[in-house]
Amino acid sequence: MKYRISANVIKRLPRYIRQLDVLSAAGVEKISSSELGRQMGFTASQIRQDLNCFGGFGQQGYGYNVKQLREGIAGALGMEKNLNAIIIGAGNFGHALITNFKFEECGAHLLCAFDISPDKVGIKVAGTEVRHVDTLVSFLEENHVDVVVLTLPQSEADSTAELLVRCGVKGIWNFTGVDLDIADESVVVENVHLSDSLLTMGYYLRNGEGKD
Amino acid sequence: MKYRISANVIKRLPRYIRQLDVLSAAGVEKISSSELGRQMGFTASQIRQDLNCFGGFGQQGYGYNVKQLREGIAGALGMEKNLNAIIIGAGNFGHALITNFKFEECGAHLLCAFDISPDKVGIKVAGTEVRHVDTLVSFLEENHVDVVVLTLPQSEADSTAELLVRCGVKGIWNFTGVDLDIADESVVVENVHLSDSLLTMGYYLRNGEGKD
Repeated sequence: MKYRISANVIKRLPRYIRQLDVLSAAGVEKISSSELGRQMGFTASQIRQDLNCFGGFGQQGYGYNVKQLREGIAGALGMEKNLNAIIIGAGNFGHALITNFKFEECGAHLLCAFDISPDKVGIKVAGTEVRHVDTLVSFLEENHVDVVVLTLPQSEADSTAELLVRCGVKGIWNFTGVDLDIADESVVVENVHLSDSLLTMGYYLRNGEGKD
Repeated sequence: MKYRISANVIKRLPRYIRQLDVLSAAGVEKISSSELGRQMGFTASQIRQDLNCFGGFGQQGYGYNVKQLREGIAGALGMEKNLNAIIIGAGNFGHALITNFKFEECGAHLLCAFDISPDKVGIKVAGTEVRHVDTLVSFLEENHVDVVVLTLPQSEADSTAELLVRCGVKGIWNFTGVDLDIADESVVVENVHLSDSLLTMGYYLRNGEGKD
């Protein structure tokens, strides 16, 4: 089955996954749309609308089975189909992601990392090998890579992204702080801007306003 | 002047700042709402609506003065009022933020970091002192801290957040992966979930769909 679902619904799905995991861990087996909505700050009708995009998962008057709903959303996100990932840039931030980020829980498998620095190339970080960036193109030819995590300096961001697109990479998870502008519409880019969330927070702190 | 602006508009403001910085760096002095919209993927009317929340900054038939608009939005975000920040957790991720994140560009000043590990306490990371977490409460009593960056293990997240709220902290930038549920509505919490953006990206990659 294929659905054409709005980007806003897709963006909310990981939040459902997280909340359902919290409920499962607490031993909750079923939940009404109104209670789930209350916990997540959505209206019951918003919850029903979101989940109807995937055929529902709920029964009128019964609510949602937490485990089934979790499986349904994970299925909709395609989490059971593993994505191969590599990281380019094993500096502090790349290192932190390799060590702490739970790629497997997101349905991704980290194959290896790439860097240019002699004191990083050849070492293993939390079991992940760091290769020289000169071997990147041949690695991409020989391995299927779905997602490239970019954690290299800003000055290298655009040229590296162009190279990746030429090599057929379709997913770029971009932590460089540069908004990558890639013309090829088949490439999915997630530009992560940590500063945006601090600036947004600053607005509320400075104005002494609660968030909606 | 005080405005009551929707959370969605506030969330978009940092994107305007970034795009206007790109334009300034390229020597662009004025821009129409339709061209700015094209570059940012918004309609001209969306742009005008967003910026009207702050009184406009634009003149009919002339467009926006890039520098003035940037100043206006920065003012709306309150970026000129410096926020004092500390980091709790100087492990890989905290270390990466201390080293790489441009706090000053977000109108924040990083005072120091806290950790519990003997090989971190007492050292300086990129000029930032790491203190023992035992000294946290007295530090908060003696210094005005607006934002606490939480980069400590998940198991410590809830208890630390409770302590911070009791000490009067009003801003928590939370990288622990645990959704902090804080009853006090005067506290602003930004829960950063990097996994959400990877999961969202995975959806598009697996379904071979472009994003809207």
